[in-house]
Amino acid sequence: MSGGESVIFEIMLKLIIILFAAKLAGYIFDRIKQPRVLGELLVGVLLGPSLFGFIVGNEEILLFLSEIGVIILLFLVGLESNIHELLKSGKSALAVAVIGVASPILLALPYLIFIEALDMTTAFFIGATLTATSVGVTMRVLSEMNKITSLEGKVILGAAVIDDILGLILLSVLVGISETGSVEIMNVATTILMAVVFLAATILIGMKLEEPILRLIKHLKVKRTFVVTSVIFALILGYLAQLIGLAAIVGAFAAGLILEREEHKEHIMKKTEVIGDVFTPIFFVMAGVAVNITTINIDLLPMAGILFVIALVGKVVAGFGAFGGNISKKAVGVGMIPRGEVGLIFAAFGLSSGLLAKGMGSELAAQGVYSVLVVVVMLTTLVTPPILKKLMENK
Amino acid sequence: MSGGESVIFEIMLKLIIILFAAKLAGYIFDRIKQPRVLGELLVGVLLGPSLFGFIVGNEEILLFLSEIGVIILLFLVGLESNIHELLKSGKSALAVAVIGVASPILLALPYLIFIEALDMTTAFFIGATLTATSVGVTMRVLSEMNKITSLEGKVILGAAVIDDILGLILLSVLVGISETGSVEIMNVATTILMAVVFLAATILIGMKLEEPILRLIKHLKVKRTFVVTSVIFALILGYLAQLIGLAAIVGAFAAGLILEREEHKEHIMKKTEVIGDVFTPIFFVMAGVAVNITTINIDLLPMAGILFVIALVGKVVAGFGAFGGNISKKAVGVGMIPRGEVGLIFAAFGLSSGLLAKGMGSELAAQGVYSVLVVVVMLTTLVTPPILKKLMENK
Repeated sequence: MSGGESVIFEIMLKLIIILFAAKLAGYIFDRIKQPRVLGELLVGVLLGPSLFGFIVGNEEILLFLSEIGVIILLFLVGLESNIHELLKSGKSALAVAVIGVASPILLALPYLIFIEALDMTTAFFIGATLTATSVGVTMRVLSEMNKITSLEGKVILGAAVIDDILGLILLSVLVGISETGSVEIMNVATTILMAVVFLAATILIGMKLEEPILRLIKHLKVKRTFVVTSVIFALILGYLAQLIGLAAIVGAFAAGLILEREEHKEHIMKKTEVIGDVFTPIFFVMAGVAVNITTINIDLLPMAGILFVIALVGKVVAGFGAFGGNISKKAVGVGMIPRGEVGLIFAAFGLSSGLLAKGMGSELAAQGVYSVLVVVVMLTTLVTPPILKKLMENK
Repeated sequence: MSGGESVIFEIMLKLIIILFAAKLAGYIFDRIKQPRVLGELLVGVLLGPSLFGFIVGNEEILLFLSEIGVIILLFLVGLESNIHELLKSGKSALAVAVIGVASPILLALPYLIFIEALDMTTAFFIGATLTATSVGVTMRVLSEMNKITSLEGKVILGAAVIDDILGLILLSVLVGISETGSVEIMNVATTILMAVVFLAATILIGMKLEEPILRLIKHLKVKRTFVVTSVIFALILGYLAQLIGLAAIVGAFAAGLILEREEHKEHIMKKTEVIGDVFTPIFFVMAGVAVNITTINIDLLPMAGILFVIALVGKVVAGFGAFGGNISKKAVGVGMIPRGEVGLIFAAFGLSSGLLAKGMGSELAAQGVYSVLVVVVMLTTLVTPPILKKLMENK
């Protein structure tokens, strides 16, 4: 048996453990009336390097499967969303997004500059890490409660899409600062332009091209074509989004939005859900695996605590930007709390670019702050599901 | 973006290309009335290193996805099979398997010893590479024609399971020869024992435990549990089979056989087919990618040709071991032609163990023979579908 064979053999066992543990945790968390996704995240922490040590690490194959999982999840979220209703809640979503991006930075700056004595760039970077909401956890909770199409669900989804884009714009601003020492207006403009054009173009062109594409698929008459073609479509838009510097899930979401008006939507959704059932839990388990509690220095605990509070307050405040009907501003704010991929990309960039090391004075200190940021990002996803579930149940 | 991110990004594009090209080839081959699986294999040859050069290589992530694909395929084959009917055709299957394992070796030995002037061990090794049928291609063709439950289908499937086991016994014999210079009776006995015990135990215990396990699953009542649990079950038995030295697909097949009697079988099958639709084509495309025509020296073409003929004749002859009803002996023989994983594992072992280099006199010559063996194995899978389809249509 070749080397490749034995690696595949080893990963197969890890995949079995992940799927089995996620399923078991799902059962237990159902029983104690908590969202299953929280169980999956905790399974990840247990399997990861923090406690029993590296039952699962950051194996490329598992990360790839988890990426497929989150792409399928956002594709399904897109399928369940309605573009017209999403635009209806556009103003609320925009207000929530802008407040939710601004407030964590504005809260973090004075603390980091005056108490932690960091320079402006480093403080701005750390604050920016806490801006972008990761909509996966919230949508999963709402999906479990059949509340994705609720007023709150729509506003959160719209705001998350907008602040994902705002977050990526911030990141490119920071890339410019770290590379040239000054803000590159062109980079900022390009990122903004690309993000807006991508979403507008995919959705508008997608709606126009839907009919001929579907006619073509029907003409092709390949066995069970709809689902596989839909998955390919979601992967392609995810890839294109990544290609122009956005998150893959933005593209997958757009793919779902485009097919939302499709007559076979129900069929596509039911079948794609099966694939999602297998792969989506992998994403959340791997999100838990990424947490390594042991790398956090005890001196850093106060900073972790304060940044965590800022991460919570910054988004709860943003919820007050939501309006209309009997919408629960609290639920919207709490739904915006989970940070994820974009925050983790931020943190990784801070470490690899040397920006954190420069600001903190040493590689070691940078590593510590990096771990703090990762844990704060993860804690936001751990803490949201039970609170959000309570708030949405009491509606 | 970290290094891991960009690898995932790159593989995502390759996955999209594979899925899209497979779908397109499926459409074209449907149109020209050829099995889709042949189109997928040719897509693999086109994308692989032979022609346009390395659009797709042997990326670990893609190999893993293809492994999942073939496990799901054999799980589905198991679900569609019926253990009692399989046992009914057991005598035919046993005869076909034994003749099919013996005849390629008996045909290859005189040619290799007297004409190619190789020693007995090397000649035996090369002959043994051509013994084990890879049932995936044949089952896919029969599945496309809805003929898996035909008399021929059952005999082929049974014989393939048996000759997979016989092939692995041969391999362990060869491992013994290469390591100690003599046949280790204990190793041979252990392999035989484990293979028989594994299949008998999983099927018998599985049947006994089916009721309580299903009651437990129902009790757990986790959303859409059946499919995910079934996939986990297939992966676990696949892993266990590999753990004791059998092919993973033997375990996946056993898992399907066990659940075949399940009352929710239809539901499980329909849902699992969706996952299979996405992943199974990856296996056949990657099987095509493994072919690298350019590594074959022109001097080796006669050997490739003769071994290919031996590979064909050896299995067609085996078909005459089938009996009962109006069974098509020719169709059974042709259905046994495709070689696959086991043959490739053989070839890889011959190269890495130095057995081929010792027998051929140099590393370079060993590399050449290795390429010949891989191409012969792949040619058998390329040539079978159209012939088998013709034979089964005329029934």
